[in-house]
Amino acid sequence: MSIVKLGYVELAVSDLDRSKAFYVDTLGFIETTRSDDALYLRGVNDFDHHCLVLRQGEVVPQWNEIGWRVDSEAAIDQLQARFQGDGLQVKECPDGQESGLGRCIRLIDPLGQPVAFYHRMEQVETYARKSHLWRGAAPRRLDHVATTTADVKVAQAYYEGFGFHTSEYAETQDGEDVFLAFMHVTSHDHDIAFVKKAPASLQHASFWMGNVHDVVRVADVAADAGYKDAIEFGPGRHKATNSFFVYLFDPDDNRVEFYTDGTWIPDRDLPPVRWTFDQYIAEGRLAWGDKAPESFRSQLIPGKSSL
Amino acid sequence: MSIVKLGYVELAVSDLDRSKAFYVDTLGFIETTRSDDALYLRGVNDFDHHCLVLRQGEVVPQWNEIGWRVDSEAAIDQLQARFQGDGLQVKECPDGQESGLGRCIRLIDPLGQPVAFYHRMEQVETYARKSHLWRGAAPRRLDHVATTTADVKVAQAYYEGFGFHTSEYAETQDGEDVFLAFMHVTSHDHDIAFVKKAPASLQHASFWMGNVHDVVRVADVAADAGYKDAIEFGPGRHKATNSFFVYLFDPDDNRVEFYTDGTWIPDRDLPPVRWTFDQYIAEGRLAWGDKAPESFRSQLIPGKSSL
Amino acid sequence: MSIVKLGYVELAVSDLDRSKAFYVDTLGFIETTRSDDALYLRGVNDFDHHCLVLRQGEVVPQWNEIGWRVDSEAAIDQLQARFQGDGLQVKECPDGQESGLGRCIRLIDPLGQPVAFYHRMEQVETYARKSHLWRGAAPRRLDHVATTTADVKVAQAYYEGFGFHTSEYAETQDGEDVFLAFMHVTSHDHDIAFVKKAPASLQHASFWMGNVHDVVRVADVAADAGYKDAIEFGPGRHKATNSFFVYLFDPDDNRVEFYTDGTWIPDRDLPPVRWTFDQYIAEGRLAWGDKAPESFRSQLIPGKSSL
Amino acid sequence: MSIVKLGYVELAVSDLDRSKAFYVDTLGFIETTRSDDALYLRGVNDFDHHCLVLRQGEVVPQWNEIGWRVDSEAAIDQLQARFQGDGLQVKECPDGQESGLGRCIRLIDPLGQPVAFYHRMEQVETYARKSHLWRGAAPRRLDHVATTTADVKVAQAYYEGFGFHTSEYAETQDGEDVFLAFMHVTSHDHDIAFVKKAPASLQHASFWMGNVHDVVRVADVAADAGYKDAIEFGPGRHKATNSFFVYLFDPDDNRVEFYTDGTWIPDRDLPPVRWTFDQYIAEGRLAWGDKAPESFRSQLIPGKSSL
Repeated sequence: MSIVKLGYVELAVSDLDRSKAFYVDTLGFIETTRSDDALYLRGVNDFDHHCLVLRQGEVVPQWNEIGWRVDSEAAIDQLQARFQGDGLQVKECPDGQESGLGRCIRLIDPLGQPVAFYHRMEQVETYARKSHLWRGAAPRRLDHVATTTADVKVAQAYYEGFGFHTSEYAETQDGEDVFLAFMHVTSHDHDIAFVKKAPASLQHASFWMGNVHDVVRVADVAADAGYKDAIEFGPGRHKATNSFFVYLFDPDDNRVEFYTDGTWIPDRDLPPVRWTFDQYIAEGRLAWGDKAPESFRSQLIPGKSSL
Repeated sequence: MSIVKLGYVELAVSDLDRSKAFYVDTLGFIETTRSDDALYLRGVNDFDHHCLVLRQGEVVPQWNEIGWRVDSEAAIDQLQARFQGDGLQVKECPDGQESGLGRCIRLIDPLGQPVAFYHRMEQVETYARKSHLWRGAAPRRLDHVATTTADVKVAQAYYEGFGFHTSEYAETQDGEDVFLAFMHVTSHDHDIAFVKKAPASLQHASFWMGNVHDVVRVADVAADAGYKDAIEFGPGRHKATNSFFVYLFDPDDNRVEFYTDGTWIPDRDLPPVRWTFDQYIAEGRLAWGDKAPESFRSQLIPGKSSL
Repeated sequence: MSIVKLGYVELAVSDLDRSKAFYVDTLGFIETTRSDDALYLRGVNDFDHHCLVLRQGEVVPQWNEIGWRVDSEAAIDQLQARFQGDGLQVKECPDGQESGLGRCIRLIDPLGQPVAFYHRMEQVETYARKSHLWRGAAPRRLDHVATTTADVKVAQAYYEGFGFHTSEYAETQDGEDVFLAFMHVTSHDHDIAFVKKAPASLQHASFWMGNVHDVVRVADVAADAGYKDAIEFGPGRHKATNSFFVYLFDPDDNRVEFYTDGTWIPDRDLPPVRWTFDQYIAEGRLAWGDKAPESFRSQLIPGKSSL
Repeated sequence: MSIVKLGYVELAVSDLDRSKAFYVDTLGFIETTRSDDALYLRGVNDFDHHCLVLRQGEVVPQWNEIGWRVDSEAAIDQLQARFQGDGLQVKECPDGQESGLGRCIRLIDPLGQPVAFYHRMEQVETYARKSHLWRGAAPRRLDHVATTTADVKVAQAYYEGFGFHTSEYAETQDGEDVFLAFMHVTSHDHDIAFVKKAPASLQHASFWMGNVHDVVRVADVAADAGYKDAIEFGPGRHKATNSFFVYLFDPDDNRVEFYTDGTWIPDRDLPPVRWTFDQYIAEGRLAWGDKAPESFRSQLIPGKSSL
């Protein structure tokens, strides 16, 4: 059994129309469908039904769920048995209950993070070669999430069990523990990152852009549309993972990143890049440019803590 | 008296809605206004009312007019007196008769080309920093026109009289005449080009794009919207003028170019770059890539021959 | 046992200095090392010792080998046993015999293609964040190879055994066979493509570029350095795999592609995109632009036929 | 008589080799020649001998001179007579005394700024289509300078006398004076900017890049080469002039900008864009992104105060 990819992120928002104005009308996500209480969005390169769900909620910002695609229906059964065997509460979501999504199971996982596992998602038409319909900065697809967790080594071991591998990590100041780990199951540098900090929270969800121009275009279209203050950090260059980024707050203070470049690494067995804490702070975090604002560390998106 | 810039191009089209689908909905020109028989379009960086007029006409494709902006109202008077003194028919167009345009004079000029001279055009809001509203490939502005003329040396002398300078030229095969001249009055490589060939016709009108990405995007959005066969030539690189280009036919076979890079040359007194005919054919026309199709030479946009 | 990635391509060349002028001095590959008879090159994002070997040879152009990285040393043993069991000749290459490469096995595989399987390659410093040392167009890394084979369905079944999946394919004209298949084991659209044609040959080796600008830059730097005639086809856009490309012949007529965009597909179980022959020819091959020249089909790089 | 363009900037540096490492080896300026005490550099699109002179000096950083190209030799005579008539000290520099430069006159002008006027500069081969030799970020050409002056209205009137026009300006807080003016004589948004502040100093010299990618590349190559701390501000977007920028300190704390986009304005008679002080501070200075660091206002490059 293994995880295939990060399939979707669900965030809580307070006003669907306001979220649509930001994500669809300004940034250029494609709206696949809308239910009574949620928007199902995808990037222009996606053939999956959605990679971002924005659900009307009382508590915002909030990380409701990340959805991992597994390699078979049987894998869902195995996971259900395993988690129940471990005494965790697992909620089954039948095929079609969630728009576009096959059967899935939901739980607050051993790391305290709200996750789902699914195998099937409705395939829809990609906008990859419908570029005449692109709007805004036309995000391509979901890339990764960055989360906080009390013990990064525990998180690494847990995700290694799903076939993940650490591509880069930074040690804690004393060199005895792990401060930050980038983990991947696909061929890109990371599908999930873990930062040592309790409780389990989302630092950001990251979407792939085609190139540096389009990351800059995120800042341009956001500011031009009146979301200037929503741009928290960047555009800039991370040296760790070698990526070019910009971070924005959505209207409910969910943090989303738009990302390009990065490291191609199909190998899931090579020694990861190691940064000491001081190296990471001095160099790894930023190849150049202004330090991250205080909010970048202090302001997190709480994970939903019960089903 | 001198010319300030190439202000606009007017082309004849057979169906305004079909032209709008191509120029506005697909390529991303901004529609400033629409009259009974014409669309007035501008690029996203323009603050002038329009740089492209598409007028319903019986004969298509057809080059109806290019509009030169002169440096004063008095300059219009001087030109009117001069052309009338030369026995040319000059038609006066009063302020406001043409949407957004001040008073102008119109004539078939001594080169046989349909031109207008004006000083005032209504200033409108630029979309330069309204990037969230851009569509398609978002052409920035009009750059230049390329025309045919019976005697390029005559055309050069005539336009030198308006303050123009030749930036680059190619000789005829025998080295005794000029085959092609690029002339500028602004700081860019050319505002008008002349190719030796009778009668006076438009080879193309060219629009400025911000960068190579956006020139490629012209091809992408055009093909994705169903105009694949409209792409005649390119994307490619001209070595003369050092520009990156793509040429398309609009639905009436008017040829439009989308263009970037090029040569910055505020100097209007330096010796022009000289190409022998063979050098120009072998190297100048194309830095690399496929030869221009036969249509590129044979298929021209006839100039309107009477007012 | 599964294949991790396409690790390297080895091509035969007639003059190492001439090849270095093309690949290193002009295009910007990094020279890791040079032996008596070979150049070992890598892209600017590579941390592997090499992804391209250019070996002095009598017969050029020639595809000497592609090297597949497998997930363990034990996998090499299993493959050796299997191929020998099938009566194939397998040559063992001990650790370090080839510069930077661990132990590998070499054979003419069941498809008649010259391949090697290895697990270890020396890790070297990546130039990803040494951009001040980049030259030319700075190819990032090896992306894929396209090969010919007598029976594509046989090739698909054979590579499915290594964990590959078909992302897109085109049928033959009669709809009864497969004309072309794109197969991937990593998260990108293809690591190897098969076109129905005997004998086993390389159509091209493809290298990843960061964006459209840099693909165009390949054409610019090649032409500016005097390799204008080496540019065979493009820049252009494939609709199948949604990629932007340019193809060049190296000084020995080995064909190399420089490539960007493409389709992200970590899923190796979804139904592949299917093109009928007519759709593929009309649309899939090219989203827009000039047809491929005759050479693109007729001129192949013969595979080495004996060890 | 009128000014044709800003031809060059001369800055004082303390160590020519160290400056060469920064400007030539890292950023990619072309070294045209080197004298005992100066480096003469140009951009890759330049056909002029130089646009940047770095002269060994005791006092650094220092703005030694800007060189304005005028439209004739006679214009130099006229200016000499005029300035001498006004009681200013004018130093004549004979043809060839300065490498590549024709006869010029030098003075501390009525604004207290060190300037030269020249007509002839040696024409050299452009690297525009020698892209295979480009290094670093390959700056294209000099674009503009930004300077401080005690009274911006006086500076505007003075430069209007040379044919300049104000494209955009910001008022002082009380609305009674001008805080900042962008002035152009070419077709781009500004060739010189004036900020109200005494004494006459250079805020920055700005070089043109082809696109957003290459401005970001300035930051990348600088940081990768060890000049991370030299990046003072950006990359970012100015809303006034609609430009994309990054500012660096050279090893002697001369501030250089790398710049793209901006506004095309061949018209030198249209009403300038007007910003109130508050609008300019809130919006005009930055379309988005971090505020300029304190150094950006406080740290200037003193103008040479005597010949």
